Amino acid sequence: MLIRIAIDAMGGDFGPHITLAGSLIALQHHPQLHLVLVGDLKQLAPLLEHLCQQAPWAPQASALKARLSFHHAPDAISMQDPPAHALRTRKHSSMHYALHLLAANEVQACVSAGNTGALMAISRHIVKTWPQIERPAISTAIPTLNGHCQMLDLGANISCEPKHLLEFALMGSLLTQAVDEIPQPRVALLNVGAEATKGTVSVKQAARLLAAHPAINYTGYVEGKDIFRGCADVIVCDGFVGNIALKTSEGLAQMLIERLQNIFAQNLYRRLLSLMARPVLAQLKQQMDPVRYNGASLLGLKACVIKSHGEASARGFAYAIARAMSEYQLQIPQRLAQLPDLGLE
Amino acid sequence: MLIRIAIDAMGGDFGPHITLAGSLIALQHHPQLHLVLVGDLKQLAPLLEHLCQQAPWAPQASALKARLSFHHAPDAISMQDPPAHALRTRKHSSMHYALHLLAANEVQACVSAGNTGALMAISRHIVKTWPQIERPAISTAIPTLNGHCQMLDLGANISCEPKHLLEFALMGSLLTQAVDEIPQPRVALLNVGAEATKGTVSVKQAARLLAAHPAINYTGYVEGKDIFRGCADVIVCDGFVGNIALKTSEGLAQMLIERLQNIFAQNLYRRLLSLMARPVLAQLKQQMDPVRYNGASLLGLKACVIKSHGEASARGFAYAIARAMSEYQLQIPQRLAQLPDLGLE
Repeated sequence: MLIRIAIDAMGGDFGPHITLAGSLIALQHHPQLHLVLVGDLKQLAPLLEHLCQQAPWAPQASALKARLSFHHAPDAISMQDPPAHALRTRKHSSMHYALHLLAANEVQACVSAGNTGALMAISRHIVKTWPQIERPAISTAIPTLNGHCQMLDLGANISCEPKHLLEFALMGSLLTQAVDEIPQPRVALLNVGAEATKGTVSVKQAARLLAAHPAINYTGYVEGKDIFRGCADVIVCDGFVGNIALKTSEGLAQMLIERLQNIFAQNLYRRLLSLMARPVLAQLKQQMDPVRYNGASLLGLKACVIKSHGEASARGFAYAIARAMSEYQLQIPQRLAQLPDLGLE
Repeated sequence: MLIRIAIDAMGGDFGPHITLAGSLIALQHHPQLHLVLVGDLKQLAPLLEHLCQQAPWAPQASALKARLSFHHAPDAISMQDPPAHALRTRKHSSMHYALHLLAANEVQACVSAGNTGALMAISRHIVKTWPQIERPAISTAIPTLNGHCQMLDLGANISCEPKHLLEFALMGSLLTQAVDEIPQPRVALLNVGAEATKGTVSVKQAARLLAAHPAINYTGYVEGKDIFRGCADVIVCDGFVGNIALKTSEGLAQMLIERLQNIFAQNLYRRLLSLMARPVLAQLKQQMDPVRYNGASLLGLKACVIKSHGEASARGFAYAIARAMSEYQLQIPQRLAQLPDLGLE
């Protein structure tokens, strides 16, 4: 079955060079994939020609191009555009046009590495959320000691009430049931301690709602240090805390790598050693690679929208496209449509 | 000049074995130090005898013991005791007694690896805060690419108003001026984005307060990934977010180490390689070692109270004692006494 996905080719910190190379990688790996590159044709067409003349794509360039089409958009949203401003004033942007293709059913999913806030705001406006969902959320897989967990919200909802955390728990459970094939995912709330007395009033109220809900396998609080222990399948928090936890992890991992590189570069013996240790570090990197976990789901929308990390590499962007394919095939949005109305609002 | 410090010898996840060994290490390194070990004499006295018969302390045991004294306390607070309960009902605990010694000026500082919430609650009750300080905060040094920064609050204040973040910024600035000898520390607010439009209403209000205050060198927002970049000397956040950011970092670092050990253990060649790489990893570990950064300050109290990590090693606990000495010598509490009344409350 052919799957068509719209690519916001102008989004991301590194622009079309990465999104186009990532698109070509995804097409190589997925024969049933067709991509619609949305953006400024004047930039995209020559760039695609250039990439297609290079290894490893040159030999199969015409076959790949047969599964690519362009959709011109004259404008692009920048990472600095405030979401409300982007929503109102950048209606001819690649992000807007890509989401219109999705809303019109011309594609089955949309992938963007652009401005997260704008992507959520414009998706809500164009793709729409299911009527019973009050707050769509951003969820991604986080590596743990023995696998991964799904964590949400990662920044769509900066201020949350307890009922919104319940909504995230339900959406996260459904996602994990489908994606990770866990029938009763263990759901935990992120908090400053494991004891029932810990946390804000809001977190404590959310704990009561989650514990009382029959569709949630609630296992209690987890602390920041437990996120990576694999003791929960779904970790729920508000978007402010989730965003800071996720980005703090990214920053720490990056610092550790930089420091390790500096130490390995200190003398000739160590440079030799680093050559010998390269496969070990490569394996660690591969296990932990944010690339393998690239692609966050905008849950609660009527169709699949996947956010790639803004700094993702081409390979990372290809992973985000693969996540979009998988979520479409697993019918994640349709599953969320079956969530009961929580009587929120 | 002799410095006397009270040690809550019963606190911490590993109990008196670690706090006593840590005390001996600190005494070895600091000839002007005298420690008062507060706790259950029946446990502490034989344990001290046992440690003093062992390397490396045996040769100098009597000299070290001459700078140690005991102060019996029949009870101990557990890590699970809710702070309010510990405050009211565990009045004969080692933590209570150690803080009473401090309040009575019999010692110049107090160090505990025990229950953080209880330590803050009992310190506020016994040691007291300066009258103009509404919310004492917990601050610690965080390693960065090129040094470290001070971050607060790390969990004393789960819910904060903007004015409390201003108070943290002022206390953090004074601490950093004294401890890190930076005349005008760069103060940043932890947020979900660097742009002015980002964040909660509360963070945005705090940003205005910090920017307007003449005693604060406010440099704007930082994201989680920037904590380790060294772009600020003081990072301010509420205790919920700070606690989760700190513990998430701890958890990630721990998982990376465990994964690396597993990869190195996969075959004989890799086990050999890990032996060769040990000095490199040791240097990284030493640079990043939480031990070197062990010891969080309870800022805003009338005297020095230092919280050691509950899971700290003996060496880590000795670092926390050194931090207590240094904060006493730098007169951190007296400096904070000079903070203007912000008219909070």
